[in-house]
Amino acid sequence: MKITLIGDGKLGKHLYKVLISIDQVQLLEWVVRSEKKGKTPEGTLITNKINQYEISDLYLLAVSDNSIKEVAELLPNDSFVVHTSGAISLEEIGQNRAGVFYPIQTFSEESNINFSKIPIGIESKQIQDLKHLKKLTKLIGTKFFLINSSQREHLHLAAVLVNNFTNHLFVEADIICRQNKLSFDLLKPLLKETIEKLNKLSPKESQTGPAIRNDSETISKHLKLIAKNRLKEIYKVLTSAIQENND
Amino acid sequence: MKITLIGDGKLGKHLYKVLISIDQVQLLEWVVRSEKKGKTPEGTLITNKINQYEISDLYLLAVSDNSIKEVAELLPNDSFVVHTSGAISLEEIGQNRAGVFYPIQTFSEESNINFSKIPIGIESKQIQDLKHLKKLTKLIGTKFFLINSSQREHLHLAAVLVNNFTNHLFVEADIICRQNKLSFDLLKPLLKETIEKLNKLSPKESQTGPAIRNDSETISKHLKLIAKNRLKEIYKVLTSAIQENND
Repeated sequence: MKITLIGDGKLGKHLYKVLISIDQVQLLEWVVRSEKKGKTPEGTLITNKINQYEISDLYLLAVSDNSIKEVAELLPNDSFVVHTSGAISLEEIGQNRAGVFYPIQTFSEESNINFSKIPIGIESKQIQDLKHLKKLTKLIGTKFFLINSSQREHLHLAAVLVNNFTNHLFVEADIICRQNKLSFDLLKPLLKETIEKLNKLSPKESQTGPAIRNDSETISKHLKLIAKNRLKEIYKVLTSAIQENND
Repeated sequence: MKITLIGDGKLGKHLYKVLISIDQVQLLEWVVRSEKKGKTPEGTLITNKINQYEISDLYLLAVSDNSIKEVAELLPNDSFVVHTSGAISLEEIGQNRAGVFYPIQTFSEESNINFSKIPIGIESKQIQDLKHLKKLTKLIGTKFFLINSSQREHLHLAAVLVNNFTNHLFVEADIICRQNKLSFDLLKPLLKETIEKLNKLSPKESQTGPAIRNDSETISKHLKLIAKNRLKEIYKVLTSAIQENND
């Protein structure tokens, strides 16, 4: 399978690592925005001139959401162009042969990612192109699931809730710990259990704490402990949401 | 070590299980609110008459926050009375020999808890009573840390953020998944990575997503996808918080 990878952001770098490790994948080129050129240590051609291509079976776009359209326009009309975004419709790609390869994961450069554990949502304009996407997930050793653009947008929203927003709560907890000379590590077994519980219970069944037991005394105490207005707002809206959900 | 356990809520039940498993602990009585009486299968006396005690080295209160004061008043004046709450000051216990044994964990009945992995925050009015609390954590096989009432209240607040509020975001994500005929399980590798990332990066360094990259197009799209006003509010306030934090 001949692949051209476009983009060297966080996802692009992780995709490069996994693609280069697969014998049956021939990574023809890695198109990057930065000035670097030449070859990677593994011998892949790095280029930043987007019009210099050999013909690939699949052009994999790991570029920012608002670049997908313009990057696709630079690619051959009859090529199979696949983006990796949660939020962008398949229709943003002008080619007839368009596809989506959406890994449900958060990517930081410093974190090692095991692709074999990541569910990949796939979609294509032409039904016969699905086989290439299926083949790619098989080569990576992971599971695919079929998902349309509307489902994918909703799943991306859900991913923002469970990762981005959750992580922000960790940021605030970390600040509170440091202000009180406590290590954030003290909370890690709790974080682990927060996730592991979901193997036995639904999120709704897992809910505990002052909000769900209507413990107004503790809630008022907590609001007094919080100095920042924004965090007070977060505390109030999430407390109300938990209580309404329990009605 | 002779212990009397008071309370059979979620924490009480988990404490019963761990205490009964320790040879060096003699669990004299388990005082419960419900009508059940007699003995547990393991032979511990169950009673609901709070005034019937043998003399214990330690009275462990796993009762609701607003019952701690009144339950403590029913116990002998010279006894060592220890509560397990994150939010309640040591001063709520009238006895001179008062203590706190605060496990940083969320307890659901259906979830198996490994106490050896839970950090226990300890505090006592009389410094010489700390040794009993340290001994108890040693018998359980876990690590203790010293924490004063103010630090503990803040840590409890942080725990509410990282567990209760995070879990509510999982509840909302679960609803979105079900409405779109997607399994919540698709998000589990993402949840796992959200936590595991923190072994390499700080929460602040781990932040990704549309809010932190100021992707206003995706943010507007998401707000359009959200039907419930309360969830819109949550989305907006957390997005603003992430963006301010990055200023």
